[in-house]
Amino acid sequence: MSGEVGVRALPPGAPVSGVRLGTAAAGLRYGGRDDLLLLRLAEGAAVAAAFTRNAFAAAPVQLAREHLARARPRCLLVNAGQANAGTGAQGLADARACCEAVARLEGLTPEEVLPYSTGVIGEPLPVERLVAALPRAREALREDGWEAAARAILTTDTRPKLASRAVEAGPWRAVLTGMVKGAGMIRPDLEPAGPPQATLLAFVATDAALDPSQTRRLLERAVDGSFHCLTVDGDTSTNDACTLVATGRAGPPPDGAALGALAEALDGLCRELARAVARDGEGATRLVTVEVEEARDEAEARRVAFTVAQSPLVKTALFAADPNWGRILAAVGRSGVEGLAVQGVRLYAGEVCLAEGGARAPGYDEDRARKALEGEEVLLRILLGRGRARARVWTCDLSYDYVRINAEYRT
Amino acid sequence: MSGEVGVRALPPGAPVSGVRLGTAAAGLRYGGRDDLLLLRLAEGAAVAAAFTRNAFAAAPVQLAREHLARARPRCLLVNAGQANAGTGAQGLADARACCEAVARLEGLTPEEVLPYSTGVIGEPLPVERLVAALPRAREALREDGWEAAARAILTTDTRPKLASRAVEAGPWRAVLTGMVKGAGMIRPDLEPAGPPQATLLAFVATDAALDPSQTRRLLERAVDGSFHCLTVDGDTSTNDACTLVATGRAGPPPDGAALGALAEALDGLCRELARAVARDGEGATRLVTVEVEEARDEAEARRVAFTVAQSPLVKTALFAADPNWGRILAAVGRSGVEGLAVQGVRLYAGEVCLAEGGARAPGYDEDRARKALEGEEVLLRILLGRGRARARVWTCDLSYDYVRINAEYRT
Repeated sequence: MSGEVGVRALPPGAPVSGVRLGTAAAGLRYGGRDDLLLLRLAEGAAVAAAFTRNAFAAAPVQLAREHLARARPRCLLVNAGQANAGTGAQGLADARACCEAVARLEGLTPEEVLPYSTGVIGEPLPVERLVAALPRAREALREDGWEAAARAILTTDTRPKLASRAVEAGPWRAVLTGMVKGAGMIRPDLEPAGPPQATLLAFVATDAALDPSQTRRLLERAVDGSFHCLTVDGDTSTNDACTLVATGRAGPPPDGAALGALAEALDGLCRELARAVARDGEGATRLVTVEVEEARDEAEARRVAFTVAQSPLVKTALFAADPNWGRILAAVGRSGVEGLAVQGVRLYAGEVCLAEGGARAPGYDEDRARKALEGEEVLLRILLGRGRARARVWTCDLSYDYVRINAEYRT
Repeated sequence: MSGEVGVRALPPGAPVSGVRLGTAAAGLRYGGRDDLLLLRLAEGAAVAAAFTRNAFAAAPVQLAREHLARARPRCLLVNAGQANAGTGAQGLADARACCEAVARLEGLTPEEVLPYSTGVIGEPLPVERLVAALPRAREALREDGWEAAARAILTTDTRPKLASRAVEAGPWRAVLTGMVKGAGMIRPDLEPAGPPQATLLAFVATDAALDPSQTRRLLERAVDGSFHCLTVDGDTSTNDACTLVATGRAGPPPDGAALGALAEALDGLCRELARAVARDGEGATRLVTVEVEEARDEAEARRVAFTVAQSPLVKTALFAADPNWGRILAAVGRSGVEGLAVQGVRLYAGEVCLAEGGARAPGYDEDRARKALEGEEVLLRILLGRGRARARVWTCDLSYDYVRINAEYRT
């Protein structure tokens, strides 16, 4: 295996050999739409998953962890509308009952089924309705079911979020397709990946042949550079889960170059999905990228980036396309960076320098600054002047619609 | 000095012998209202102040720290509308020029003047207009000027916030009067007080005779139990300052019992002012008290309380009077408490148990829960079941008006 190595985008939702997806309407919360998804994985597929570190992890998260430790998953079961979180022992029993129902239909053991839920916390999972819809989801299983699947798992999202890549390394080829849902309660903190902190559900599959530990390493690396750099509201969910499936249908295992290309493709795909979540954040009118550079270390850079990205004053100013750089500097100043020297900090909106030396930049032009903030994509760059480490965080603005969505969500 | 020890409320703004306050309209930002305040302190008054720990501390904060270290303050100069933060070297020169102008009028050295500013960050302080208004503020100096003063320092606040107490210990008597401004950019983190973290400006005066170190100790203790338990938006300001003045006009220094009574009166007065800030938080419809009990230590209790108090999902649910206990538990779960056991946590809205054992409380009644959240004052109690430490944080809900105020503030 040698020759050209490359990654290219494919139309989102490109089928991955060895993964079939089927959806159905179980009436769990929403009328007139599918809200149940079944994924059937080819025998021998390697699966890795990262789950929320929230101490109030939902019943399906608890059970999925347990099942994943005991068996190689053959089916994933996802529902939207009910999170099955804050449901105590009954919630766990309900999640088990759903896995058992899938296992009976599919001729599996319950441990071979991983459950995922997203939606309202604290309400009992309508197990009977869910189980009654399973045969319809099963009849609908198909390899080109990604788009329907990405729609079935949405809650406050406004659109499905999918991405696909083709990876080539000489004659070696693989396809990667992923989908994600999430708009609120988004600040993923997934173990076992890094120290940082939705309901975010992400499912990514490839037809490459990977062993379980390779699958795990690829997932951790991709999560660290994507979903761990994402915040809508700072509220880490009880139900976050990110799952990578490698079906092995693409032929021989990748060599070093191919594995490298696959890892890069996965990183890029997960970044695309993370950005899609920020762009579709509850009430969002802009995708905001906060880049912090010249920090002493990455932890410091991340700390500043998340403080700015989660500041309500910064986020409401961004909604107004108001170049209120004072609020941004104030957020940098409160982020807890030891011995931060105001004089060394420079702040940009896109290419426009807003502030330096602790004050408005020389030649600052309010109209130019405002234009840099008016688009659907905004870049804030904060240069700390302390070192060479950097971090990037994706978020969105805070609008009237954010309040509407979250003050009306349960009612 | 012996006999009865007691504290009672006085009509807010009760004069404090030795403190005169004068206001004027300098036209710094707002039309048709006073925005400049001068306080003249009696000779020999002891003054202690705590300033923001934000690394981007405003010019007046930097200068006030410097002046306080070098001289005993005789005048305080406060302006609203312009924060003189993010103004670099010019800002510092401007703050100096204002102190010099006061010093000339009053026959003082500039070091005997402490400057305070609140308002928009990043715009130059209109020094000429400010200085031109000083003689009018000076002519207006009077002991019963507290209410006018409390109005002159407001920015996005909707009302003046004042409180007064009378303290008695036998024949010993003192008066305490304080005022505070602050509605947004409120999460005070004042040094030198504790590790916790507005523009919050608070001025408290007593006619008691205290030495500077007593004044300082009383201030630190009062701030820790009040402004350090306050958050509107989590955005610690560049301009926060809390100042305690003891004029010594009330006769002999307090004995132990009297000092204890004065300290308690001051604690209570600062708590009242802190609650008033939360109640008047930008766009607030409710004052929300978050009490965390049964924590292992106070740091843990504070961490949980601030995480809940600053969760956008919790705050928008509170705006809707939605007993969305799942969001509260999710915030507790992400607060980073080591080894938190879901089963041990109980959650109350007022007297109504919302959740326990990681699920909805037995007998939970949605209507009762909603009623507990509908008032202008809401109490959330979170019992962690881990220990005996506790903490209390005051905050407010997150409404449409919050977004309106902050998306329109500069425009």
